[in-house]
Amino acid sequence: MNSLVCVGLDSDFEKLSHRFRQKENPQFEFNKWIIEQTAEYAASYKFNIAFYEARGEQGIKELKMSMGYLREKYPDIFTICDAKRADIGNTNRGYIAAIFDYLGFDATTLHPYLGKEALSPFLDRDDKVSIILCRTSNPGAGELQDLEVDGKPVWQIVAEKVSQDWNKNNNCMLVVGAIYPKEMEKIREIVSDITFLVPGIGKQGGSVEAVVKAGLDDKNRGLIIHSARGIIFAENPKEEAKKLRDEINKYR
Amino acid sequence: MNSLVCVGLDSDFEKLSHRFRQKENPQFEFNKWIIEQTAEYAASYKFNIAFYEARGEQGIKELKMSMGYLREKYPDIFTICDAKRADIGNTNRGYIAAIFDYLGFDATTLHPYLGKEALSPFLDRDDKVSIILCRTSNPGAGELQDLEVDGKPVWQIVAEKVSQDWNKNNNCMLVVGAIYPKEMEKIREIVSDITFLVPGIGKQGGSVEAVVKAGLDDKNRGLIIHSARGIIFAENPKEEAKKLRDEINKYR
Repeated sequence: MNSLVCVGLDSDFEKLSHRFRQKENPQFEFNKWIIEQTAEYAASYKFNIAFYEARGEQGIKELKMSMGYLREKYPDIFTICDAKRADIGNTNRGYIAAIFDYLGFDATTLHPYLGKEALSPFLDRDDKVSIILCRTSNPGAGELQDLEVDGKPVWQIVAEKVSQDWNKNNNCMLVVGAIYPKEMEKIREIVSDITFLVPGIGKQGGSVEAVVKAGLDDKNRGLIIHSARGIIFAENPKEEAKKLRDEINKYR
Repeated sequence: MNSLVCVGLDSDFEKLSHRFRQKENPQFEFNKWIIEQTAEYAASYKFNIAFYEARGEQGIKELKMSMGYLREKYPDIFTICDAKRADIGNTNRGYIAAIFDYLGFDATTLHPYLGKEALSPFLDRDDKVSIILCRTSNPGAGELQDLEVDGKPVWQIVAEKVSQDWNKNNNCMLVVGAIYPKEMEKIREIVSDITFLVPGIGKQGGSVEAVVKAGLDDKNRGLIIHSARGIIFAENPKEEAKKLRDEINKYR
């Protein structure tokens, strides 16, 4: 496989074709099809839970069915719930029960704003991965993340904290958006041993070449490069997944 | 009623008594009972969605049933989904569909880390309320929130941004934890016209007197003071809700 591709199963019901929308479990059937098309090129699958929550309990049911299918057919593939959670410690246990135990994900994305103490129920799960938002992929990411604290932007402080303190169990990753390769390069200098989850290539404007050059670690890995719409809603998802895998590998 | 009390329906299944756990829809039946006991003293109900997500699609179903019951019996009461969400703009639409449209909440809590641009699908909903995390109630809140930017802590910058820029539709509130009354006093100076959602009294250690003195606006309002465990898991929830309402009003 030799792939750094993360296929994003952002299976927005509104965007599914009639072929899937008429089925009893449209998001599940669509995901099954996409998984079959792309598994040989994917290192990971990421489900953005918002697209499932939008359909209430039916969406959650289909998310669980999709995870069940993936787990059974491809037990070794890395699964990410893009949930961007973070509450106080006590309440985080509810999210952990939902995401890690009920749905069975390997990893989830988390906001850093409440600090390590609040996130510790996630960080303490050394069988699971906590992916901390560091530099997000949206155009307005800088409003808070670029604020300077003693000459350092907040995103840099988050990277340092995760690397030096939050990652005691070696189970942290960072979200670093593809549209900010300069920031990514700086973060790679600070955290040599942490893998980045990289959203934002394709429609959001990030360049694969720039990401690979900025983000690889010294083992020529350390990146999980995410694409959702560019693969799953393409004419030929299989071809797009292969193309992305090959493009990434060309620059490694 | 004349109340500033927000009753927290953090109806953790594990903590329900046998009387409820044996029912077909235990969280819903429990919530119905608590609502009947406390509605005459409550200005608002807040559901922390983590406790429902922990039970998968069944939890979401019971959350929706609880909201349906509340809406029908007490259509004017203010309902908050404590979901602490925030993704990029496009994805936030999924959360909006879930929280505002499917479940029918009046308000939701949101992380500020991605900035205004990402949150704009929430902020643009002028029929709904966006409650931005400013100073959270956990002991480790300061790790990021106290970082100083040009002599001001991050929580102050968030309060200023929300007040001066994010609140164009007059539909923002701020989360300000009860265990930080000094910070609350400062935030009240900056944002005279924004209501605070205040978690952290009771078990978490916040004092009602200190909160009321620090947080009231010049109309003697501007606070929604939250209590969950202290009311819903008490021997007599009705009495505890009344007691909290009266204690708050004593200091107004």
